[in-house]
Amino acid sequence: MAVYFNDQFVSNEEAKLHVADLSLQRGYAVFDFFRTVNGVPLFMDDHLDRFYASAAGLYMTINKNREELKAIVQELLQRSSLSEAGIRLMLTGGYSADSYHSMTPNLIITCNPAKTATADDFEKGYSVITYEHQRQLPHIKSINYLVAVWLQPLLKEKGADDVLYHYNNIITEFPRSNVFIVTADNILVTPARNILYGITRKHVLSLAAGYLPVEERDITLPELMNATEVFLTSTTKKIIPVLHIDNNTIGNGKPGPVTRELYRQLTTLQTNLAANEQNCH
Amino acid sequence: MAVYFNDQFVSNEEAKLHVADLSLQRGYAVFDFFRTVNGVPLFMDDHLDRFYASAAGLYMTINKNREELKAIVQELLQRSSLSEAGIRLMLTGGYSADSYHSMTPNLIITCNPAKTATADDFEKGYSVITYEHQRQLPHIKSINYLVAVWLQPLLKEKGADDVLYHYNNIITEFPRSNVFIVTADNILVTPARNILYGITRKHVLSLAAGYLPVEERDITLPELMNATEVFLTSTTKKIIPVLHIDNNTIGNGKPGPVTRELYRQLTTLQTNLAANEQNCH
Repeated sequence: MAVYFNDQFVSNEEAKLHVADLSLQRGYAVFDFFRTVNGVPLFMDDHLDRFYASAAGLYMTINKNREELKAIVQELLQRSSLSEAGIRLMLTGGYSADSYHSMTPNLIITCNPAKTATADDFEKGYSVITYEHQRQLPHIKSINYLVAVWLQPLLKEKGADDVLYHYNNIITEFPRSNVFIVTADNILVTPARNILYGITRKHVLSLAAGYLPVEERDITLPELMNATEVFLTSTTKKIIPVLHIDNNTIGNGKPGPVTRELYRQLTTLQTNLAANEQNCH
Repeated sequence: MAVYFNDQFVSNEEAKLHVADLSLQRGYAVFDFFRTVNGVPLFMDDHLDRFYASAAGLYMTINKNREELKAIVQELLQRSSLSEAGIRLMLTGGYSADSYHSMTPNLIITCNPAKTATADDFEKGYSVITYEHQRQLPHIKSINYLVAVWLQPLLKEKGADDVLYHYNNIITEFPRSNVFIVTADNILVTPARNILYGITRKHVLSLAAGYLPVEERDITLPELMNATEVFLTSTTKKIIPVLHIDNNTIGNGKPGPVTRELYRQLTTLQTNLAANEQNCH
C-alpha cells in the first residue's frame, strides 16, 4: 500500500519516522481520518477543515493547500484500488533537537482497507461503561489516546464495547465517537463542549433538525441513564445504538425509533453523496 | 551514535519506527531517562525500577531483565565515548493491526550528549508561571507531554522558564520536574500525590531528612506563594531555585540557604557516586 510521506509517495515499508520525532518523544501530533464509499471520499472537506484546525491548534503548519491534499488522496486511492478505504492524514511535531520544541512537521498520509460497522452491528448495539476522564485539548484531534488504550483491559474484563467519558457529573464523549440521547419528551440532545466535534455528529445534527427538536447542551449522568434512546456516532461506526450503560438498560434494550430513522437517513445520505460524486466524474 | 533497537544495535539513521506503531497512532509508549557523570550512569537502578513500573502500568512487558538492560547501556556508552551522556529507554505499544490495541512492544535505547544545568543556571534561578492542568496517569512516565509542548508559545510570550501545574488549588509538578517549598518555619515540603515520582526528588528527600524536617503533602497555591524558598528537581536540571512565580517574588528573589545546601549535598553525592563506581572497576 502506498504512503505519502513529506512530498513523495513511498512504499508501506518505508513509512517510518525517526525516533527523534516529537510524536514519539512527546506525543505531539495531530491526525484526521475519513473513509470512502464506492471509492468516493466521504465528507472530505469537513475532515480537511478539522485537520487544518487541529494543526493550527498545536501551532503547526501544513505545507500543502486543500487542493494539493485532495490530489494526494486521489492518487493514493488510485494506487490502492480500494473502493472502501480509510484515509489517515497525520502531521507530527517533527525532528526536535531538544526533544521538546516543535520543529518542521512531518506529513504522512496513509490509505488502508476500512472496516465499517454493518447493519448487524447496528441491530446488536453496544454495551458500554462510564469512566471519569476529560480528554486534553478536546477540540484538537491529537494522537493522545493514552487513557483510552490503557482502559482496554478494563473494557475486556467488563465485557464492554466502549467507554463513555464524563467529568464532574457531565458526560462528554467516547474516545473515538460522539454521544447523543433522546429524552422522554422526544428531544435529541448531544454535549456541546469539552469534546471533539465529530464530522458524523455534525451531519446527524443536520439531518435530525428536519425531524425532531435538537439541543446541544450539558447532559448529566442521571439524565443519560433515564434517556429513552442513546446512540454514538463516528466515521467508521456511523450510528450505533447504546443499549446498556454500566448496569442500566436504555429503553427496552433494543434500537429505538429515532436512532433507527437517523441511521436510515445517514446511510441514504452517504450512498447518495457517493453516487452523485461518481456521476459528476 | 549507536541506538539499540529491539535485539540489535543499529545506526542512528536506522532508528526509525513504522507509522503503524501505537506510539505514533495513539501516543501509547513509556520511557525513562538518566545521565552519566564521568561515564558512570547515575541512579540507574532507580530509573530501571521506574521504567519497568511504567511499562507494567500500561500493561506492557519489557523482554529484557535488569542485567540485560544494564549491559546494553554499557555497550552504548562504550560505543558513544561520551563521558556526559543521556540514556533514553523507550518502550512503545508496538505495531497494531487495528491502531488501537497494544501489541508486541518495540524497545529503543538511545545515548546522546547530555546537557545538564550548570552552577550559573543555579544562581540565575527560574521565573515560572502556573497553569491549571492535571497530567494523565501521572505515576507513569508516558510520552504524553501534549499540554507541556502546547504551552511553549505561552511560556515564550510570558518570558517564563517553565510552567508549574496545579489542580483544584493544589500544586503538583512541572512537566519534567518536581517542586519543593521551604515554609516560614523551615520545613521542606513537596507534593505527595498526582505526580511522577522523580528520582532526583527521591534523593533530595533522602538528603534533606538529615538536615531539616520534611513533609510530603498537598501544597495550596497561596502556601506556594508565601514560601520562603521554592525549587525544582530533575535529572538534567538537578536543583534550580524558583525565584519568581507569576507576578510574585519568592523570598528575596535569590537562591535561599536550604536550596543552596541541598544543591551542594546533591552535587557532592553525584560526584562521589561516580568516583566510587569508577574505583570499583
